[in-house]
Amino acid sequence: MPHILRSDDIAFLLYDVLGIDDIATRPAFSETGREVFDQVLATAERIAEDHFQPHAAKLDANEPHFDGEQVHLIPELRHALDAYLDAGFLAAPFPPDLGGMGLPFTVHTAVSAWFAAANWSTANYPALTSAAANLLAHHASPEQKETWLTPLIEGRYFGTMCLSEPHAGSSVGDIRTRAEPQDDGSYRLFGQKMWISGGEHDLAENIVHLVLARIPGGPPGTRGISLFIVPRLIDGQRNDIRLIGLNHKMGCRGTVNCALSFGDVDGATGWLVGAPHQGLAQMFTMMNEMRIGVGMAASALALTGYLHALAYAQDRNQGRPLGAKDPAQPMVPIIEHTDIRRMLLQQKVWAEGAMALSLYMASLVDRQTSGDAEEARDATLRLDLLTPVAKSWPSEYGLRANEIAIQVLGGAGYTRDWPLERFYRDNRLNHIHEGTRGIQGLDLLGRKVPAQNGAALTQLLREVAADAQASALPGSETLAEAAQKIGQTTQTLLAANDPETMLANATLYCDTLGHLVVGWLWLRQAEAAHRLLPQATGSDAAFLQGKIAAYRFFLAHDLPQIQTWSTLLASLDRTALDTSAAQL
Amino acid sequence: MPHILRSDDIAFLLYDVLGIDDIATRPAFSETGREVFDQVLATAERIAEDHFQPHAAKLDANEPHFDGEQVHLIPELRHALDAYLDAGFLAAPFPPDLGGMGLPFTVHTAVSAWFAAANWSTANYPALTSAAANLLAHHASPEQKETWLTPLIEGRYFGTMCLSEPHAGSSVGDIRTRAEPQDDGSYRLFGQKMWISGGEHDLAENIVHLVLARIPGGPPGTRGISLFIVPRLIDGQRNDIRLIGLNHKMGCRGTVNCALSFGDVDGATGWLVGAPHQGLAQMFTMMNEMRIGVGMAASALALTGYLHALAYAQDRNQGRPLGAKDPAQPMVPIIEHTDIRRMLLQQKVWAEGAMALSLYMASLVDRQTSGDAEEARDATLRLDLLTPVAKSWPSEYGLRANEIAIQVLGGAGYTRDWPLERFYRDNRLNHIHEGTRGIQGLDLLGRKVPAQNGAALTQLLREVAADAQASALPGSETLAEAAQKIGQTTQTLLAANDPETMLANATLYCDTLGHLVVGWLWLRQAEAAHRLLPQATGSDAAFLQGKIAAYRFFLAHDLPQIQTWSTLLASLDRTALDTSAAQL
Repeated sequence: MPHILRSDDIAFLLYDVLGIDDIATRPAFSETGREVFDQVLATAERIAEDHFQPHAAKLDANEPHFDGEQVHLIPELRHALDAYLDAGFLAAPFPPDLGGMGLPFTVHTAVSAWFAAANWSTANYPALTSAAANLLAHHASPEQKETWLTPLIEGRYFGTMCLSEPHAGSSVGDIRTRAEPQDDGSYRLFGQKMWISGGEHDLAENIVHLVLARIPGGPPGTRGISLFIVPRLIDGQRNDIRLIGLNHKMGCRGTVNCALSFGDVDGATGWLVGAPHQGLAQMFTMMNEMRIGVGMAASALALTGYLHALAYAQDRNQGRPLGAKDPAQPMVPIIEHTDIRRMLLQQKVWAEGAMALSLYMASLVDRQTSGDAEEARDATLRLDLLTPVAKSWPSEYGLRANEIAIQVLGGAGYTRDWPLERFYRDNRLNHIHEGTRGIQGLDLLGRKVPAQNGAALTQLLREVAADAQASALPGSETLAEAAQKIGQTTQTLLAANDPETMLANATLYCDTLGHLVVGWLWLRQAEAAHRLLPQATGSDAAFLQGKIAAYRFFLAHDLPQIQTWSTLLASLDRTALDTSAAQL
Repeated sequence: MPHILRSDDIAFLLYDVLGIDDIATRPAFSETGREVFDQVLATAERIAEDHFQPHAAKLDANEPHFDGEQVHLIPELRHALDAYLDAGFLAAPFPPDLGGMGLPFTVHTAVSAWFAAANWSTANYPALTSAAANLLAHHASPEQKETWLTPLIEGRYFGTMCLSEPHAGSSVGDIRTRAEPQDDGSYRLFGQKMWISGGEHDLAENIVHLVLARIPGGPPGTRGISLFIVPRLIDGQRNDIRLIGLNHKMGCRGTVNCALSFGDVDGATGWLVGAPHQGLAQMFTMMNEMRIGVGMAASALALTGYLHALAYAQDRNQGRPLGAKDPAQPMVPIIEHTDIRRMLLQQKVWAEGAMALSLYMASLVDRQTSGDAEEARDATLRLDLLTPVAKSWPSEYGLRANEIAIQVLGGAGYTRDWPLERFYRDNRLNHIHEGTRGIQGLDLLGRKVPAQNGAALTQLLREVAADAQASALPGSETLAEAAQKIGQTTQTLLAANDPETMLANATLYCDTLGHLVVGWLWLRQAEAAHRLLPQATGSDAAFLQGKIAAYRFFLAHDLPQIQTWSTLLASLDRTALDTSAAQL
């Protein structure tokens, strides 16, 4: 079937909109460059198509099961991961001294999008491993790196993150798992962990759990949490870790997710990473990248859903044009119908807009690591501000895109004969993990916006307004007006001087700012298309015209929401707060 | 678990808002009355709780399967249907001369909501049977009624509607199934039918398929379609009907849905209902009721999702209030958190608003059948206008409600340990069957609004504006302004004088009018609550205050969308139409 992603669209975003080939000339990326990126992306496309997509439906229908001894997964998953590892994708983003090729994070994110779009459940295993490896690369001792990081990067070991507990999810400061120090410098861990993706399987020689726990005597709350390496096997022997049970999910079914018990017998052996009580801070060094990764997955699922719906709409004949109802005339492809066309363009706007946001955020990570002091500082400011948006907006509008992708297919879209309903089920997760939608809104409006006297937001709004005013594309002035409106609204909210009232509709604030940023990135896409159009012909020209049309659609259909929501936000509406539990 | 529906809310809507007890005094309903309604509703609640809800998750996990001989369903389904039939629910809405008790359609709709909320998949079997019986009650000959209608009403036979074919779904005028007349007055049918709910099972003595087909020589298109009774068994022998295959759906998995082949051997025997070539018109006599039924199911799923989320939010402790972060303090129920409260109230507004719309529409059916000439005419006008809205709005906002119900539970909501993800999967169907979302928009703006020079819309807008202006509840004037805005927008659209442009965003028009009608019904709920409050105490008073709070929330959060969407609609935006297939 393909329709995974469009390589021309990914290239357009990376090079023509975000200028990643320019970033690649910097010393930090000296071993790479556009030619390498194109090869890497082409290989990702091929492996996604040959090894990831073919077993996606089968994996969804045959979720992991535990026979009391071990967790079973379909063999195609292991074969796909072998192809992924053989091509070097796990190592690629790590620096050469760690065995990688120093691939820019932006290109790595685009590569990951191919795998997430083809088969998100399978793609999660290396993604989790990469995140665990990254954490160790930042915080582990040289000896720990040699023992645990190297086999993770080689893909011989897989990794997990163990934060939540049955009684503590969003409220991570309330975790209770304790780590008792031993004479040999190791620790014994006791406690239960919940929602552990990749927590048990036989896909790798070992599983390296990165576990948050408390060292007795430490401070309460978030300041008393430490990070531990707790492997499934030590010298080939099972550590004291027990699978409590698998979680049976709505979607993303091929990714094992489970509850684990540490220390049922005499304690699970683990080793402290870095200094005591730094666990949450250490975990948060990776938070921007991890949340960008959630947004990327949501975007990838939205895009592949769009492309499947588009192909169906071109192929399926049904009905006739308005005013041409002669039943003797042949039926037309449904893409000719008004509402189908609207649903496709709306998906394009949301899905391509979300992917532009994800790759833009990734490019900020690269600017942060490779730019001079000023560029790095600006990138960090923007990155910190927009991470909640980059996690939330694609989760919201990617899901909506998948919802209408089903609608394009009608009854067929509602069956498991087509992958659309699976994309929709999978994508529903993205508002939940790595910080719920509500947490993102609180983080944005409660912390990120007020930080440094609002410097990050001011800078963003100024840049959006300047770009909009400089644009010759019709309607761009409304984008500048929207930026201004958000600035005023934010001042009203901050002046409320009452956190509860200010944050009562923080989720909506996050959507509102998301619309502005995505609108701005659509402006940048449309400007790039406008610039390239004179040299383009045929399908290339149509592609570029489509970008301009999508920008126009965004301005007409989506951008006006900013004014509506801002008015609501500025009214400091407390209706929900003032409604008691008994009244609900 | 219960949390199916709230009986006090249903009673409030039926009696205090819609005045159904007044309607019940009319001669048409002489055998009923409020006392009877309350008994019937209490019985529905009990059977829904005891027999429908308990097997809902099991049925979802064990969908119907075909072993090559017959379709198997879990036995609990049969037991639940026995309880339903024994209580007389199938017969209840039919007139006494057909064996029923002449229950008003509004009360029947409320009864059906209990079963849909408890277990929609199981509830579909009697709902389909009731619809088939209703069609025969209107159009079949006395002899056909005796042979087929009586056992349907008794629940010994079950019914189906066979409209779609593999190549013809929304475009029903393109069906090809043909019916060859025989010497004995019967017909032999040849063709394939798709998406047949209840198409094959062993739950009843027989299945009565109501099949649309063409008699050779008839006119092409929709005007040459006839309606036939085609039973699964004739005198105990299998008719020439073959199960091609079951459809495996995203949700609503317990309701058999399949493709059937008629006449693989020598033709399936059937009998014409009424005159030739009247099939579509006959089918459409039931369309208002059937589409109200879809909206009711969407509303019921939204409501039960809300009540489950509400119970969870009162029970689950997590985190602490803003500004009280001392980890030594106990965690609070999540209903105390801003964003949870907002998500609950938003669900309440959408779910209770959708149910109010469904029951209001049902009350129009009762006014149509029991009122004097003027009342009947007005009810018909309103009913025809708003049927697309009553089908679409609950499907859209009911689904959104289920989406955020999952979010209230976080990770738990994403697992199959809780029913929230099932409600969401089930509810996704409602935009698709009985006329897709796009079809509803075209029907509303292309046919219903322009009919009779816009009389129905004018009357509606006038009534909404008058009620809003007469209200002393703060903010009601914005409802009157919204009605005015929709009036102006509609004139602009009709004046476009180009069907393609006028209908380019017809789906959005349908949402816009839906917001107005639901806002008006919230005003009516809030007015009723305001009227009753002085006599109420305790939880009754809290319930009424909650209705007023929900109205306030609707005014602040939902109503403003009417202005935004109307502006877009009045701009006659053609972006999607003008974007070519190659540009998508």
